[in-house]
Amino acid sequence: MTPDPERRFRLTVHYDGTYFFGWQLQASGRTVQGELEGALKRLTGTRRPVLGAGRTDSGVHATGQVASVSLPLRWKEEELHRALNAALPNDIWVQRVEEVPAAFHPRFSAVARSYRYQLGLSEEALSPFHRPWCWALIRPLDLDLLHQAAALLPGEHSFKSFAKVGQEFRGDRCTVSEACFTPWDGLGLAFRITANRFLHHMVRYLMGTMVEIAWGRRPLQEMMELLSEDGTELVTSAPAPAEGLFLTKVHYRDEDSELN
Amino acid sequence: MTPDPERRFRLTVHYDGTYFFGWQLQASGRTVQGELEGALKRLTGTRRPVLGAGRTDSGVHATGQVASVSLPLRWKEEELHRALNAALPNDIWVQRVEEVPAAFHPRFSAVARSYRYQLGLSEEALSPFHRPWCWALIRPLDLDLLHQAAALLPGEHSFKSFAKVGQEFRGDRCTVSEACFTPWDGLGLAFRITANRFLHHMVRYLMGTMVEIAWGRRPLQEMMELLSEDGTELVTSAPAPAEGLFLTKVHYRDEDSELN
Repeated sequence: MTPDPERRFRLTVHYDGTYFFGWQLQASGRTVQGELEGALKRLTGTRRPVLGAGRTDSGVHATGQVASVSLPLRWKEEELHRALNAALPNDIWVQRVEEVPAAFHPRFSAVARSYRYQLGLSEEALSPFHRPWCWALIRPLDLDLLHQAAALLPGEHSFKSFAKVGQEFRGDRCTVSEACFTPWDGLGLAFRITANRFLHHMVRYLMGTMVEIAWGRRPLQEMMELLSEDGTELVTSAPAPAEGLFLTKVHYRDEDSELN
Repeated sequence: MTPDPERRFRLTVHYDGTYFFGWQLQASGRTVQGELEGALKRLTGTRRPVLGAGRTDSGVHATGQVASVSLPLRWKEEELHRALNAALPNDIWVQRVEEVPAAFHPRFSAVARSYRYQLGLSEEALSPFHRPWCWALIRPLDLDLLHQAAALLPGEHSFKSFAKVGQEFRGDRCTVSEACFTPWDGLGLAFRITANRFLHHMVRYLMGTMVEIAWGRRPLQEMMELLSEDGTELVTSAPAPAEGLFLTKVHYRDEDSELN
């Protein structure tokens, strides 16, 4: 029996991670993948697996998560887009729906990802309109040191020290193509980082360590040592809080020529 | 018996109105005034009445609400500021605490108030990072008509048509000193209005009516007629949703010389 023909769709998804136990489906606890699969089940009558490009952790947000789902031929982009947004809770929004070739896999087809981390440096960052989406730092920090720490990241390095302990992963080398701090609406700084791959909690460990350097609690050279290929006795600082982190973009071949 | 001497403080307060039944204390239902009085009771051991400059409705936000409270002499600005923010829930933030003369009354001392109303006009306004704080309009509107409708507001008019039915109020004339639409971060438009006083639901009725004019559903002349002194048979459009509205500033004499 030949399976019914289907269309494959790529979804670009924004979510406020505050009230999610991350992206990935869990036995219990509200997740973004779970909400998407639930909405699709209500729309189509059957359970449809939704694949995601990156498994954001509990509390992490997204303005460019990419997911895919296959549906019966009668579904079209426009209709699916409208129906999904009507069926989803307010903390998830599907920005775009595009039909893609059956071979498209949001995770394996991706060539790079970008994250953004928001550091609140003004009093105003404590307001309820900003605080849920940043790490509000009360103590002043040395901006020069922060920029210098970020400038060490581009290139290929071992990020083993910046990965959550106890996980298995396929090697620990990552190539960072962009890492910089830019102003964030008068509220503080946004750190933007793009790499071909990220280890578990990597951005949060990097941010926690860079902030401790910028607070003068550890020397800048330790950043270099932590990135060294030969390993080090040093450990990173505690990871920065999840709420400042956003998955902003998943890059695919042919779309971002500068990355290929 | 002479009452114990006290200090009077003026608080500048931001809140996300989403999960509040408005500013004013109620028998049941979470309110901003209730949370502030609750926090002060925990800090001082006794119930202290908190007065507010404006009674924002259920769902309405603030980035410049002004409140006052009197406390025993041992309380100082700095200490009260820190203690209050530590005691308050995350959707309220006290931006500033200043000691003021005993005669200061946040409502009666005020000479004008400013509100902001956010209209979401781009797709992005539907994202969870913007949608809770705007009226996301799907249907396109005529921006020229919107600006023309706003331009009719400055000056002294009867706003009787733009007040919630069934309330009592001290007259219906208000003097609008500013009413204009400005761009809102690529997401849409923000309407800013300043007046010596506002009637109940006035900004929301104004916005609902201006949007219907800009949608071509009612002629611009009806705005003039609704503002006429002689009264009119016309009724306004439905009030715009509470979630787009912010109380942004309460003006006091000597602070804003342009208003005095």
